[in-house]
Amino acid sequence: MAKTIRVEIIAVGSELLSPHYLDTNSLYLTRIMNELGLPVVRKTIVGDDAASLSGCFRDALKRADLILVSGGLGPTEDDRTREVWARVLNRPLVFQPAVYERIRRRFRRRGLTPTTSNRKQAYVLKGARILPNKNGTAPGLWIEATGRTVILLPGPPAELKPMVQDLVWPRLQRRRRGFYVRRVLKLTGLGESVLENEIVDLYPKDAALSVTTLASPGQLEIHIYGWSDKGRSALAGKAHRLEKAFAERLGDFIFSRNEESLEEVVADLLASRGKTVATAESCSGGLLSHRLTNVPGSSAFFLEGVVAYADQAKTERLGVPAPLIHQYGAVSAHVARAMAESVRRRSRAHFGLAVTGIAGPGGRTPTKPVGLVYTALAWDNGTQIEKNLFPGARDAVKFQSSQKALDMLRRHLLLARAKPARPPRNRARRTLKGHRP
Amino acid sequence: MAKTIRVEIIAVGSELLSPHYLDTNSLYLTRIMNELGLPVVRKTIVGDDAASLSGCFRDALKRADLILVSGGLGPTEDDRTREVWARVLNRPLVFQPAVYERIRRRFRRRGLTPTTSNRKQAYVLKGARILPNKNGTAPGLWIEATGRTVILLPGPPAELKPMVQDLVWPRLQRRRRGFYVRRVLKLTGLGESVLENEIVDLYPKDAALSVTTLASPGQLEIHIYGWSDKGRSALAGKAHRLEKAFAERLGDFIFSRNEESLEEVVADLLASRGKTVATAESCSGGLLSHRLTNVPGSSAFFLEGVVAYADQAKTERLGVPAPLIHQYGAVSAHVARAMAESVRRRSRAHFGLAVTGIAGPGGRTPTKPVGLVYTALAWDNGTQIEKNLFPGARDAVKFQSSQKALDMLRRHLLLARAKPARPPRNRARRTLKGHRP
Repeated sequence: MAKTIRVEIIAVGSELLSPHYLDTNSLYLTRIMNELGLPVVRKTIVGDDAASLSGCFRDALKRADLILVSGGLGPTEDDRTREVWARVLNRPLVFQPAVYERIRRRFRRRGLTPTTSNRKQAYVLKGARILPNKNGTAPGLWIEATGRTVILLPGPPAELKPMVQDLVWPRLQRRRRGFYVRRVLKLTGLGESVLENEIVDLYPKDAALSVTTLASPGQLEIHIYGWSDKGRSALAGKAHRLEKAFAERLGDFIFSRNEESLEEVVADLLASRGKTVATAESCSGGLLSHRLTNVPGSSAFFLEGVVAYADQAKTERLGVPAPLIHQYGAVSAHVARAMAESVRRRSRAHFGLAVTGIAGPGGRTPTKPVGLVYTALAWDNGTQIEKNLFPGARDAVKFQSSQKALDMLRRHLLLARAKPARPPRNRARRTLKGHRP
Repeated sequence: MAKTIRVEIIAVGSELLSPHYLDTNSLYLTRIMNELGLPVVRKTIVGDDAASLSGCFRDALKRADLILVSGGLGPTEDDRTREVWARVLNRPLVFQPAVYERIRRRFRRRGLTPTTSNRKQAYVLKGARILPNKNGTAPGLWIEATGRTVILLPGPPAELKPMVQDLVWPRLQRRRRGFYVRRVLKLTGLGESVLENEIVDLYPKDAALSVTTLASPGQLEIHIYGWSDKGRSALAGKAHRLEKAFAERLGDFIFSRNEESLEEVVADLLASRGKTVATAESCSGGLLSHRLTNVPGSSAFFLEGVVAYADQAKTERLGVPAPLIHQYGAVSAHVARAMAESVRRRSRAHFGLAVTGIAGPGGRTPTKPVGLVYTALAWDNGTQIEKNLFPGARDAVKFQSSQKALDMLRRHLLLARAKPARPPRNRARRTLKGHRP
């Protein structure tokens, strides 16, 4: 087995030590390294001053085999990554007319002339390989020194990502150490502790695979991942068997095994069946239609939405009878049903999807707490209504409301598909022990 | 002048070296340190293994005066922050019955018993001060050693933040080194390069203040910030003068000087004037109403929204004449006007706000490119329509569409307020040289 390659990522820039910016490049870089079977062992974020940089670079050289540095390649005085590496590695910076010509051409295309400070970007560490920048002026540099590899990358993600994709990834392929396998299951309708209890006995004994669960309001993810240095297929097989075991246990609480969002899954189901939907929202305030229309091509399945915030809008735009609102309140199963059925009828969509509730922080009554939300789905042959009590702040309640409504539609579309294919005894909705969705 | 205190932040956890998680605690910790006048000079993210941790902690002790460590205080085997610090500082871990009792009580309240692994959380570094955890089992630790201060904090933000707020901040107040001043201006309707050209001559010569601009589609921010070790008022005065100079130059392109979002600003203007709005959206798909209803209390000013995605919805729900759509197309100034006027009339709101356009990637025609968006504002006395060509992908076009519509309403409300207060000659909308919004 080849020696492990220890990767460190260094992000350079004083703005990354402010309360305003996170180093998001490292997520992308980590994913790329993982896919090559190269573990990232440390990430460092350091400011622009030369002393800090040089200390940081020297330390990394002592520990790591591969050092990825982002940022500090720009034209300003604060951009010191090149010059500090030159000092640390004791190598001169050499002006490269061809690099400068590239920068000039880039400016000329936009009718501009480079400033004198841009000349700085044409200085290249002696012996380094130049990584041309398609999307900016700063070229990257690939440096081999004292048995280490140091790769300098520009800070803006729009410049860094294509450079890594086109120039770094293919070159690092030769140093691949094994294979990374990752499977992601996304779920909704289950609490985190219920999920943990359900699947804990399935967790891999095998050290080659790890399982992590991520929870956010209205959504859970199970990540199965691992490395192998003996080829991909054996590990991929293990990961697949584990994924299958989770999938059998968790049934249709899983909405995606391919990293799609719930709205993408619902969009696919609608589009593939030639079905359409219209929405009627109160407390979700348009988030449900916003999510459905985030999917490219949504005009094929999304006809219209009504955000009936005021009671008057519920009666006039949706035809919800005013006495119904007076008798049961706008946040009630009766009104949710009327909203879903009405928006379906008026739009002539196949499905009507409705949300009414109390997103908070205001609006609660003695009998109706913040987080109480009714969701309803109307179709040609019936209407289903769910009563929910969602925890969290206003934005969390809005999101969970939209998530629940989308999930009702997803489950309905799945059952509808299952009908012709399966005998009736298999058609019942799967529930977990002790948990009814 | 007191010696500078150099702060380093270390986030512990192998999940932070995966492609899935960012260390967001550090933004909060940096803000707190900045407000105390303490500069953060480095952030490190390191995995759970003992060798990496001990190397990382030893290095930080050589450089920093104050070390904030988050994570690795949990009950599992992977949680090693305590034991590695004990080894690095050569101090024993001592079982503290009082801490364990606190953990037990916490479990008992939820009808549970702590596992044996929770005992581990009751071991405290000799001489360390315990920082009780209101929201979890892991107490924080405050360690003074070899002239350094090391503060161990739990990883979950919901546990870390209150602990810092209640127990760390007050204690660090005594070490305050000067004062941090920050002002944020938010703008919309200007491009980044235009902004830079407009304000570059105002940038501070004074090293005590820095200016950073942040650009995202549809929004620009100018951050003015700096430290002073000679009291807050002089620096705050300078920052205020600079902010005023920017404000005079940039006029009503600035929508906020208090970090509000554009929807919050519009909500305040509507609520304070007792005005209401209704929306009619096509390509923004509900995002406009979603943003308006993100503001708590939005039912006071938001009556309803129609997401008229299909042409049929535009005619039936909004009464846009079908011949108008046939003649000019759904993406046209005529249809935008009809949508705004109709939703205003039907809802009886003071304002009707409409968006129709092509969010892409599909839907363009030979004469109508992706990003072409018409926005319209209707009021009692007229209708204003704007034609826009927004760059970027679907989500960016949707956001910029909603941003433009909100900004039209904001500017209208500002002018309406200005009327009685100012003589007519000052009422003209301020424009920048060479740029008409």
